[in-house]
Amino acid sequence: MAADVNEQPAGYARLLEPSSLTAIAQVAAVIAERRPKHVVFTARGTSDHAALYAAYLTEIRLNLPAGLASPSAITLFGARPDMSEALVIGVSQSGGSPDLTEVLRVARASGALTLAVTNNPDSPLTSAAELAIDVVSGHERAVAATKTYTAELLALLLLVEGIRAGDGRLPADERAALDTLPDLAERTLADPLPGQLAARYRFADRMVTTGRGYAYPTAREAALKLMETSYLPALAFSGADLLHGPLAMTDPDVPVLAVVGAGPGGTAMREVVTKVGERRADLVVVGPADVPGAAARMPVPQVDERYAPLLDILPVQRLALALALARGEDPDAPRGLHKVTSTL
Amino acid sequence: MAADVNEQPAGYARLLEPSSLTAIAQVAAVIAERRPKHVVFTARGTSDHAALYAAYLTEIRLNLPAGLASPSAITLFGARPDMSEALVIGVSQSGGSPDLTEVLRVARASGALTLAVTNNPDSPLTSAAELAIDVVSGHERAVAATKTYTAELLALLLLVEGIRAGDGRLPADERAALDTLPDLAERTLADPLPGQLAARYRFADRMVTTGRGYAYPTAREAALKLMETSYLPALAFSGADLLHGPLAMTDPDVPVLAVVGAGPGGTAMREVVTKVGERRADLVVVGPADVPGAAARMPVPQVDERYAPLLDILPVQRLALALALARGEDPDAPRGLHKVTSTL
Repeated sequence: MAADVNEQPAGYARLLEPSSLTAIAQVAAVIAERRPKHVVFTARGTSDHAALYAAYLTEIRLNLPAGLASPSAITLFGARPDMSEALVIGVSQSGGSPDLTEVLRVARASGALTLAVTNNPDSPLTSAAELAIDVVSGHERAVAATKTYTAELLALLLLVEGIRAGDGRLPADERAALDTLPDLAERTLADPLPGQLAARYRFADRMVTTGRGYAYPTAREAALKLMETSYLPALAFSGADLLHGPLAMTDPDVPVLAVVGAGPGGTAMREVVTKVGERRADLVVVGPADVPGAAARMPVPQVDERYAPLLDILPVQRLALALALARGEDPDAPRGLHKVTSTL
Repeated sequence: MAADVNEQPAGYARLLEPSSLTAIAQVAAVIAERRPKHVVFTARGTSDHAALYAAYLTEIRLNLPAGLASPSAITLFGARPDMSEALVIGVSQSGGSPDLTEVLRVARASGALTLAVTNNPDSPLTSAAELAIDVVSGHERAVAATKTYTAELLALLLLVEGIRAGDGRLPADERAALDTLPDLAERTLADPLPGQLAARYRFADRMVTTGRGYAYPTAREAALKLMETSYLPALAFSGADLLHGPLAMTDPDVPVLAVVGAGPGGTAMREVVTKVGERRADLVVVGPADVPGAAARMPVPQVDERYAPLLDILPVQRLALALALARGEDPDAPRGLHKVTSTL
């Protein structure tokens, strides 16, 4: 898992090489020309969080309605939704989930434009889709997905910005900003704090994670990673939903991990963090700036809020890994987990 | 809270009276005539679970793609998605959330057909929408939503089946089946088991809830209700997602509450339940039939899986209430919670 985590800067660099950029640009150009009216994502587990990030991007950068489909409506209940106006994107590291493949098959039969985003160009999901993007992460050794997740995030960002550009080619300033990512990721991974925080959470028996907007997928992925590797029950809430009820559950015994970026999502999170503070919860922040009341902060470079999910998750992955080791668990062989999960 | 819970059979009966049925049928007929290409739901907290149920219904019964919108894309990041082909439905007990109102306002301005489903016909959400449905629950005394949730479920079911019928009028057999619901709800609420289970969970420090298809919203709402009233951290997963990672977290110390109905969702859940059993988790089932390996079952009448969410949540609400009392909490005044939550 440590090796996978440390390969992420190289993974970003690989996706930003001309061959990969060109491949994604070609897919983006086809989509831009076909002008879908809305976008439907289908994914499971970690990839579902990458899809959620892409749904925010789709709505904010493309002004297209976007949603996440429940595969079971199609696979279990036989729904045959008319997706003729939709772009349907399946996101899966392995491309091997039969339920996602079935969703893409049904969508394509109803006239949808379909796209598979996977780390396996020879997968059933890729075969089922009209278009495909390979996130070129190479073999992922650990069962808990790390480098494939961030590669999915970057590939989907490149795709959305390519559709926005129309011809798939990114504007020069966007391209320049993206080219700094491998280096920023390297610097983020060098910070020692996540390892130290593992001691803090060694005896925690639960955790709440929260973020808003682009940072909400990070909060969800953080919770899943902590659960998968350390078996620490972690509840993820959008900052807004947290105030709608589960805030009642926080108290000084429940550590809260909040993703507070620089931008509209981060600004909105400051209200949430204040209310969490009033409940005297133990607060740790992931973000580029100090937040009043936080006991600690896992620092990340300040970037456009759109790019932040590519960096914010890195210290959290390291925390999950260190915490698993501190608790005597083997993060490379989580009990009861398999790399490809077959559900229908 | 107990009074609200016990009013649910009467709430069903009220929605099934001619005046309410006619009002919903008129809305359904307008929607059927306008033929939206897809449906976008927007909601928060408990109402989000009612919206999720309606999204399954929309896909399965209307063959229309359906998704849940993230309000923050619009309210924080200024997205202006083109929703001209969409039906956009805001679901909110109070109708007072500024973010949902803003989503409906933006959607309507972009040409969407908009609908507010609330328990308050004089609310800002209702004013913002072209169409409105009143779930006629009367005043809800407790902060934790119970009777407004189930009223939203039934109102949305009546809406979807009315759209399916085309003119809003339900087929006679559907009507007859629905008319049994008040009585079935009454019988379900009379079962003593939920109160007894509170003793079982008195010292649990977390819980996992799970279900698939129509039962997944029930699992989500069960988790939220337990958290809001008893501060018991409860993690909800679709049965499929549970197998994709969080299964690793279950062990004999983590009680699992599984909703296992009669139908395709319940059949798929049996595989999940078997895997949970292999991890020697403490399993309690909500459903009409015994499940091998379950330590207990909260019984509900066997109905079409579409209707099951209207009954399955009832024993869980009673469990949440009893557990709160057993743990010395006041379910009528959860700490840190307000009836209307204002987020932007």
